[in-house]
Amino acid sequence: MGDAPRDQLGVGMVGYSFMGAAHSQAWRTAPRFFDLPLRVGMRVVAGRSADGVRAAADRLGWEDSTTDWRTLLDRDDVDLVDVCTPGNTHAEIAVAALDAGKHVLCEKPLANTVAEAEQMAAAAERAAERGVLAMVGFTYRRVPAIQLARQLVAEGRIGEVRHVRAQYLQDWLTDPSAPLSWRLDKDKAGSGALGDIGAHVVDLAQFVTGQSLTGVSGLLETFVHERPVAASSSGLSGQAGEGTGPVTVDDAALFFGRLSGGGLASFEATRFATGRKNAIRIEINGSRGSLAFDFEDMNVLHFFDDGEDSHTAGFRRIVVTEPDHPYIAAWWPPGHGLGYEHGFTHQVVDLVEDLAAARPPRPSFADGLAVQRVLDAVERSWQQGSSWVDLP
Amino acid sequence: MGDAPRDQLGVGMVGYSFMGAAHSQAWRTAPRFFDLPLRVGMRVVAGRSADGVRAAADRLGWEDSTTDWRTLLDRDDVDLVDVCTPGNTHAEIAVAALDAGKHVLCEKPLANTVAEAEQMAAAAERAAERGVLAMVGFTYRRVPAIQLARQLVAEGRIGEVRHVRAQYLQDWLTDPSAPLSWRLDKDKAGSGALGDIGAHVVDLAQFVTGQSLTGVSGLLETFVHERPVAASSSGLSGQAGEGTGPVTVDDAALFFGRLSGGGLASFEATRFATGRKNAIRIEINGSRGSLAFDFEDMNVLHFFDDGEDSHTAGFRRIVVTEPDHPYIAAWWPPGHGLGYEHGFTHQVVDLVEDLAAARPPRPSFADGLAVQRVLDAVERSWQQGSSWVDLP
Amino acid sequence: MGDAPRDQLGVGMVGYSFMGAAHSQAWRTAPRFFDLPLRVGMRVVAGRSADGVRAAADRLGWEDSTTDWRTLLDRDDVDLVDVCTPGNTHAEIAVAALDAGKHVLCEKPLANTVAEAEQMAAAAERAAERGVLAMVGFTYRRVPAIQLARQLVAEGRIGEVRHVRAQYLQDWLTDPSAPLSWRLDKDKAGSGALGDIGAHVVDLAQFVTGQSLTGVSGLLETFVHERPVAASSSGLSGQAGEGTGPVTVDDAALFFGRLSGGGLASFEATRFATGRKNAIRIEINGSRGSLAFDFEDMNVLHFFDDGEDSHTAGFRRIVVTEPDHPYIAAWWPPGHGLGYEHGFTHQVVDLVEDLAAARPPRPSFADGLAVQRVLDAVERSWQQGSSWVDLP
Amino acid sequence: MGDAPRDQLGVGMVGYSFMGAAHSQAWRTAPRFFDLPLRVGMRVVAGRSADGVRAAADRLGWEDSTTDWRTLLDRDDVDLVDVCTPGNTHAEIAVAALDAGKHVLCEKPLANTVAEAEQMAAAAERAAERGVLAMVGFTYRRVPAIQLARQLVAEGRIGEVRHVRAQYLQDWLTDPSAPLSWRLDKDKAGSGALGDIGAHVVDLAQFVTGQSLTGVSGLLETFVHERPVAASSSGLSGQAGEGTGPVTVDDAALFFGRLSGGGLASFEATRFATGRKNAIRIEINGSRGSLAFDFEDMNVLHFFDDGEDSHTAGFRRIVVTEPDHPYIAAWWPPGHGLGYEHGFTHQVVDLVEDLAAARPPRPSFADGLAVQRVLDAVERSWQQGSSWVDLP
Repeated sequence: MGDAPRDQLGVGMVGYSFMGAAHSQAWRTAPRFFDLPLRVGMRVVAGRSADGVRAAADRLGWEDSTTDWRTLLDRDDVDLVDVCTPGNTHAEIAVAALDAGKHVLCEKPLANTVAEAEQMAAAAERAAERGVLAMVGFTYRRVPAIQLARQLVAEGRIGEVRHVRAQYLQDWLTDPSAPLSWRLDKDKAGSGALGDIGAHVVDLAQFVTGQSLTGVSGLLETFVHERPVAASSSGLSGQAGEGTGPVTVDDAALFFGRLSGGGLASFEATRFATGRKNAIRIEINGSRGSLAFDFEDMNVLHFFDDGEDSHTAGFRRIVVTEPDHPYIAAWWPPGHGLGYEHGFTHQVVDLVEDLAAARPPRPSFADGLAVQRVLDAVERSWQQGSSWVDLP
Repeated sequence: MGDAPRDQLGVGMVGYSFMGAAHSQAWRTAPRFFDLPLRVGMRVVAGRSADGVRAAADRLGWEDSTTDWRTLLDRDDVDLVDVCTPGNTHAEIAVAALDAGKHVLCEKPLANTVAEAEQMAAAAERAAERGVLAMVGFTYRRVPAIQLARQLVAEGRIGEVRHVRAQYLQDWLTDPSAPLSWRLDKDKAGSGALGDIGAHVVDLAQFVTGQSLTGVSGLLETFVHERPVAASSSGLSGQAGEGTGPVTVDDAALFFGRLSGGGLASFEATRFATGRKNAIRIEINGSRGSLAFDFEDMNVLHFFDDGEDSHTAGFRRIVVTEPDHPYIAAWWPPGHGLGYEHGFTHQVVDLVEDLAAARPPRPSFADGLAVQRVLDAVERSWQQGSSWVDLP
Repeated sequence: MGDAPRDQLGVGMVGYSFMGAAHSQAWRTAPRFFDLPLRVGMRVVAGRSADGVRAAADRLGWEDSTTDWRTLLDRDDVDLVDVCTPGNTHAEIAVAALDAGKHVLCEKPLANTVAEAEQMAAAAERAAERGVLAMVGFTYRRVPAIQLARQLVAEGRIGEVRHVRAQYLQDWLTDPSAPLSWRLDKDKAGSGALGDIGAHVVDLAQFVTGQSLTGVSGLLETFVHERPVAASSSGLSGQAGEGTGPVTVDDAALFFGRLSGGGLASFEATRFATGRKNAIRIEINGSRGSLAFDFEDMNVLHFFDDGEDSHTAGFRRIVVTEPDHPYIAAWWPPGHGLGYEHGFTHQVVDLVEDLAAARPPRPSFADGLAVQRVLDAVERSWQQGSSWVDLP
Repeated sequence: MGDAPRDQLGVGMVGYSFMGAAHSQAWRTAPRFFDLPLRVGMRVVAGRSADGVRAAADRLGWEDSTTDWRTLLDRDDVDLVDVCTPGNTHAEIAVAALDAGKHVLCEKPLANTVAEAEQMAAAAERAAERGVLAMVGFTYRRVPAIQLARQLVAEGRIGEVRHVRAQYLQDWLTDPSAPLSWRLDKDKAGSGALGDIGAHVVDLAQFVTGQSLTGVSGLLETFVHERPVAASSSGLSGQAGEGTGPVTVDDAALFFGRLSGGGLASFEATRFATGRKNAIRIEINGSRGSLAFDFEDMNVLHFFDDGEDSHTAGFRRIVVTEPDHPYIAAWWPPGHGLGYEHGFTHQVVDLVEDLAAARPPRPSFADGLAVQRVLDAVERSWQQGSSWVDLP
């Protein structure tokens, strides 16, 4: 399909682990709180283990399951393929789906390499000509406080952007006996903290400012080079198997860059920030005001308006739960906060509205490619003694 | 039913407004994240308007709808009645349901008067003898941080409780032109801030400390006595109709009391705390430590352990998103916070587990009656010049 | 003196313990940062122990010392007597000083009883007719953030006051083996937490709102009735002597009241709030905005302006260190915060400016008496089962 | 002098502007709260304007004044020269003083260039052989929370250091019409944000970790290249004179580096962080715990101990006002916070104690030189396209 919006939107999902659970909750929940222009049907979920995928279908609310994701491409009742697998499989699945005329929602990072991301962006461009649309899933964009931040920047409320400082801090690798998982394997994950979580803050910085990075200088580091092999291949069990194996990705990434508008940006992504569980922090200083956000307090945006009288000026703690805040009218009264998973529901809402309107959704695969190019430039800078790498 | 746990738990809900939406999301979501011992069926929703309730059934995910809640009592496929109506109808519906052998989940406050609450508690006691169980819906108990607080108190981590200070602050009536709604009508709501939100903090104080109030002294106040009539009877539209009408409930309530263990407690409930949207705050000081919680930062519990060395002692900001925190293992990785509605899902989980185990759920109707008695004592104290009123 | 401002202001201080040290730092420092209209001379300090007071004079910067405070009244070079002794001696010293024509700065609470406070207010009134002026030392009024709060209320920025909630939380008595000190002896201290720290929050509530309490209902509590005798009479050493003695004052006080403008106020003062060291908190909700302050973050005032657009409204964290904030221009650049003792310096500045202008300083002894009457009403309410006590 | 501790320590100060006022308050106050082993005499202050320096002496409490700083070197009653002038004069004054046998306290940054700093460090080394001692004034080291942080790192409480993220954020140049001052003139100031405030965070990072930076990569930026000439040469008046002039220093500096122990560090110094007045932030993540500090809340240190049970682990908000915290026993009871200027008083205390004990004070001129070398490496990296520059 793809030629025109229909009443039904049949969805097939590939992968059913952490991201699959989050996406499923979104597909189930969006129609309950929002007036969607298309009727969502959760047709089928694909996964490698027959037993696992069947149980997941039942648990997560999918009508059917399959061990072969390619069958999704042949099903008439599947209009969109939702890709929730590790990054090394994104390109193959997404390109095939787009070429088969299926809309695609693909988890971030778009791919593990720039080359793959370029193929995907090209496929998305081809598909768009036929009305087949693609989106990459940087869901943190859909946190209401982040949407509000974007809106305030776009309205000129903070003026010209001078500084962005963005950090994504986790600590799940602090313990050297934490086991290996696919996320620590360069072949599957592409990179470590850089691509897994650094990608999010790069996307947020570019999204909220409406600008792109024009160059970067960076540093990568692996603190623990050898770890116990995990008992299960997913590594999600947290239990150790036998022996040890090499960590082939970065544990932490530091970089700074320049924005297209002339401002400066600094970034940090690490899994070694002891005590910080999922601290996504972004602060933006402009010529007329500032914004600050921390995902540990996700329903809040801090806003400083330099136009206020100096004796009453101060960072405002905006509790982003008012009816006129993005997405909120569909939910609860003021002060009744949302959680992590709501970003995925909002992603579904935005995507379905765009599909119904035959409007290219954002972030596009081109946006995803742009993030990938930043990550790649950081790696190249690091290989060249942190020297500056220009971005196209 | 009620004689033994079954594979199926058929649910019928009465009311489909704010609370109905929250309960529906919980019934839909609980089986997706938790391994429930019973299979939940969302059989039927009841409401007064035929069109309204039909649309609500579709939107909220109920198989059927009805304009007569009494038909729920006759349906074999309904095992539990979930009461989400205003307080003045709780007693009639809940008692009838229990007497008809249906389990009951009843929104708070249990009733609008002590007399009604006593009838309900008596009905629950009668029903329990036949294995028919009842719970009142103080969902804030199910916020993980509150459960953790209860656990730490029970483990003796803060010692003997000296002080509780609890506040429930909202601001939706600050504007004198905010319209009347059923919540401002004593006949329907029983009381104002006292019963609507004060009930929550009384329940939280008693739940977290594991103690009961033995006496109180209180003060009620209505700041705005006349308000525009709302355009719709629910008043939820926020739009004014024609003319004005009297506010017959309190806008704010202040009271203090003594706990059964000898500690002191102070309470405030108001809808006039400008800028505070849903600030449920509770701080508990014990002989060995302290706890503090604010619903505006609902994934966090603050804990002070007086046993620490004085040079490193301090309130710990516990981000309550670890796998060993209450309810969390079923959700997301550390640092990925939950929202308001998760409390309702946890309520369903706990209730279904209790039903399957034929174990009386808490808070019981007797717990709800105890809260109602506190509210009543506050009112009587106020009528007697704030003089002390003992509680049984 | 007292007939006219002079170039010199000779000061004699009585008492040299905690408050004496704070006052001395203020007398020394004020002329270094502010352009005072009188030249301050630190003439003499009086205390009971000859050795102690001599060492204190040297340490604290006083020219002379004496063991007889009455000699201050005879000295021509002493224009002002600064009373830093326990409350039971305030009336005698202050009345004698005023009657001898000396200005008086008297630490809070003004006295231990209403009767004494009335004598003092009467003496101050008599003295004022001769140009002899008196002030009571509620120094927390002089914290810049509190002054700013008062200013914003006076400018109507928060509209009509609906709620005040004020707490003074300490924890130095949590440990039952903490020794007795004069502060736990009703004869010397008058009351416990109520008068020592509750007095401060009563004064702050009345000062910031510009209103007075018209009635109260209260509750007092002593958690630990017997404590070890302190090794030194001051009890400041924190070391235990032999045997135990009775605690004759309250450990905690809870009360609520009504303000002259119709708003409600709640208060708590306790020395059993484990982990709270000197948490003076006051929040004020008005019809147009709100203010919040916590002395644990003393350079900050939180301000909510209900006139802001709802999508950018939020509590502003005003860092009260701008040149146009009260007292700040004399100190450091923005963001360089002040500490506890600065309130005492500001007190000296305000007092000296008032004396030079022959303008009655505030808080006056009448203000101090008004606070004393509130404390007394709380005690009487408590003795009468917490029933309401009207204030004149 | 310098051969042995004496009873008296005569001090001469050069400069009497912002830093001069802060140092004077410290020299006046230290003996009032601390038992100093030497008796401080505030002998003489030197400045260029005869009228200005005379008024400053009176205001700041110096016995004498002079327009020629060299006269200090000849006075027998001056044992220590306190250098509070702009950075371009530090080397000349400090070297002359040391060579004349005077101890030296020199404000930071030690000098404007590495060459000058090397001369100074060499002079300090020469002087030390004769018992003449030198210290550079990184006063933020003396904030009690920072001392506590250093202590906890040294005790191994956070294990091996993985990450330091340090920022010094101000906003006084956000307005493009803010006038030129000597701080924007490369000849006088050496550099802009980098040397003025970046120096502080480099020193703090090295001090708290006990490690040194082994290499850096950096980026400098000037956002506003032309500004109005200030009415007064100091530029402190904030008023504009006639015409405009060039800004010859950086407005902002970003850099990251590696610590000698293998950890990573990131730095930002800017005067364009709208709404941030003096936000000195440092967070350190170690293998066993973390620390975080923000000067906007200067009496607080946040500490995460990874050894805690995961269900009660959290960042502790340590209010650093306990008697067993650094410097605190001399001041006020718990919870009575200190301010900006107290760091200078502590600097005097530490320095005087070191002088009396003939113990080399820290930070030494060698420490100051090390910071200077980092700043220089950042500049060189920037000139070389941000490529990595190793430090000795």
